[in-house]
Amino acid sequence: MQRVGIVGAFQTPFGKYLDRSLKSLAEEAVAGTTKDAAISIGEVESFYVGNSIAGLITGQEMVRGQTVLRRLGVSGQPIINVENACASGSTAAHLAWLAVRSGQAHVSMALGMEKMTHPDRSRPGQAIATAMDVETSPAKPGSISPFMDMYAPRIQAYMDRTGATPEDLARVTVKAQKNGALNPDAQYGGDLTVDEVLGDKMIATPLTRMMCSPIGDGAAGVILASEEYIDRHKIPNPVWVVASVLKSGIDPDDQPQALARAASEAFEIASVAPTDLHLIELHDANAGSELMRYEEIGLAPHGEGPRLIRDGTTNLGGDLPVNPSGGLLARGHPIGATGVAQLVELTKQLRGVAGARQVEGATIGLAENGGGWVGGDAAAECVHILKA
Amino acid sequence: MQRVGIVGAFQTPFGKYLDRSLKSLAEEAVAGTTKDAAISIGEVESFYVGNSIAGLITGQEMVRGQTVLRRLGVSGQPIINVENACASGSTAAHLAWLAVRSGQAHVSMALGMEKMTHPDRSRPGQAIATAMDVETSPAKPGSISPFMDMYAPRIQAYMDRTGATPEDLARVTVKAQKNGALNPDAQYGGDLTVDEVLGDKMIATPLTRMMCSPIGDGAAGVILASEEYIDRHKIPNPVWVVASVLKSGIDPDDQPQALARAASEAFEIASVAPTDLHLIELHDANAGSELMRYEEIGLAPHGEGPRLIRDGTTNLGGDLPVNPSGGLLARGHPIGATGVAQLVELTKQLRGVAGARQVEGATIGLAENGGGWVGGDAAAECVHILKA
Repeated sequence: MQRVGIVGAFQTPFGKYLDRSLKSLAEEAVAGTTKDAAISIGEVESFYVGNSIAGLITGQEMVRGQTVLRRLGVSGQPIINVENACASGSTAAHLAWLAVRSGQAHVSMALGMEKMTHPDRSRPGQAIATAMDVETSPAKPGSISPFMDMYAPRIQAYMDRTGATPEDLARVTVKAQKNGALNPDAQYGGDLTVDEVLGDKMIATPLTRMMCSPIGDGAAGVILASEEYIDRHKIPNPVWVVASVLKSGIDPDDQPQALARAASEAFEIASVAPTDLHLIELHDANAGSELMRYEEIGLAPHGEGPRLIRDGTTNLGGDLPVNPSGGLLARGHPIGATGVAQLVELTKQLRGVAGARQVEGATIGLAENGGGWVGGDAAAECVHILKA
Repeated sequence: MQRVGIVGAFQTPFGKYLDRSLKSLAEEAVAGTTKDAAISIGEVESFYVGNSIAGLITGQEMVRGQTVLRRLGVSGQPIINVENACASGSTAAHLAWLAVRSGQAHVSMALGMEKMTHPDRSRPGQAIATAMDVETSPAKPGSISPFMDMYAPRIQAYMDRTGATPEDLARVTVKAQKNGALNPDAQYGGDLTVDEVLGDKMIATPLTRMMCSPIGDGAAGVILASEEYIDRHKIPNPVWVVASVLKSGIDPDDQPQALARAASEAFEIASVAPTDLHLIELHDANAGSELMRYEEIGLAPHGEGPRLIRDGTTNLGGDLPVNPSGGLLARGHPIGATGVAQLVELTKQLRGVAGARQVEGATIGLAENGGGWVGGDAAAECVHILKA
């Protein structure tokens, strides 16, 4: 098995770009990633493309990756379109990692791309609802926020169990927006107060709008290479992928569920403990999910997630910054791009080039990306651990 | 690298099942495949699911594999949804092969599933059109056969170059229908004459309706296992995957294009020559494509494809039977299932259990599955070589 390093990483600025095509966003990401790696697209031996809803937004149901990559000069190299809802990007990265790790390719690329904005403003909500089983979905028909409807009672149950308050949820948003303001590629960012977050429009009690990840457009890429290739080409500062674990959901009666299992397996593979981590990018689809994930990843004992946001542990400058990029809440969440964007952020941080949001001395980071909801758990959960 | 064998293979009968759901077809395929392998679904370590158009047919844009597999008892094992148009099934098999070959899993499953029939009879044609770039597609708006519109001038040019006649195209259909009649899982089959095929409704000159693969529904599965697992469990009669090659399209000015490159690379990897093959399942999306593929795969010299159908070489009982299953023309072509169904047919043939259509003494076979059309070539081409 080959050791695998990230040698190129790039994300477009995330935002609402009604006037830009999915292709144009993806092309910007491919150009940025190959430039960052100083590798020509012809040297990339395989491509894994994560996208979730282009069928509903652009009409391109099939061969989405080919429509982008073939006109950028990819000729012959395998292109594989991958879909795992909001975990499509990390799933693409997992497959690119496997291609290199197994020796099938020396250089492979994962591209995550999504356009969610549409002139018909009900379209993104309709699209998101299809990340659940459309026959049995708990989403309310016509809901603009089907996933928040699903999350809300789970977040409420978590609050009842742990004593987390609406103020704690608001603190997650305040942190995310503060970090996002330091990230030029984030969709949002700014100085908010807890009261401003609590006073925003209620989407699904207890989640106000600012506690929910937004609709947005964007693309991100990573290029992975084998240690042999990295040595041969004297590539400086690779960021090593020391674990890549993908799981589907776990039957509801069994604990722990997919996220916790993926994380503990990744820690074991990487021989890393949660206390060894210097930063995390996690799937804060909403502010409550972030607190729940603190516990599921193993950062805090059962029931003690809220402490980490109250005492500043997960702030930039705290002991374990979470989502220095701004996370889904502020960097944004163009579905299929998110998992790759998390790896882009970790790569920048572990290279020490994350600018105003740099986590000082960071050498070990974890990315966690969840997608869909089927059978009482996430449809897919993917955890990567990276080391400088 | 682990040697990889197919240890379970099953396809549902292909047909038009307006009254059956995609889930029900897929569940039948999963049950049949695990039963054939005598492996419980819990022992399968990862799942790759090929599907192309469920978004347009069922509304399930995302997590299609999870909506099937989670309720069949898959809990935790990775499920990855794969899309490469009509080559989605073989792409899923290629990834399952890589998972086992690399040692990531001892047992992995590829599932291909598609439902194309829809109460709105224009829907399948709309769906198929999205296997080209929807922004630049050469398909006529509203065409019921966008791919036949694309193929037709290419087939005509091939006929002009080689002297292939409409009768030669009709002979391909006659062969396919004759073989299909021997396959209980085929959508069509029967005794036709060349004149009957030529006299059918013209879809896109020179292709009559009987020369074009039909709309249909179905699912198919293969389970792949490592040699170590096969030995440990004393699994009888594995069919070895000796080459699995996936390519995207080649720039139009470069020759050979994707199909020929994938085939020649597969022959090289497997140390097999075209003359060593005992049978082939190839992607006869239309009758003319079959003749062109004879040359592209290397079964006949440039310009001599028509000879193989005229002299009976590719008939059952000929020197190199092609599409004993009936192929896309008669077995049927539920898009995402086709590539897996080809492997199911080869597995049955190489096990010697293909019944009335058995190719006597077959020990080496090749499957070729193409998908989509982008940039002047197939979007994806996948070739497998299997050995008893």
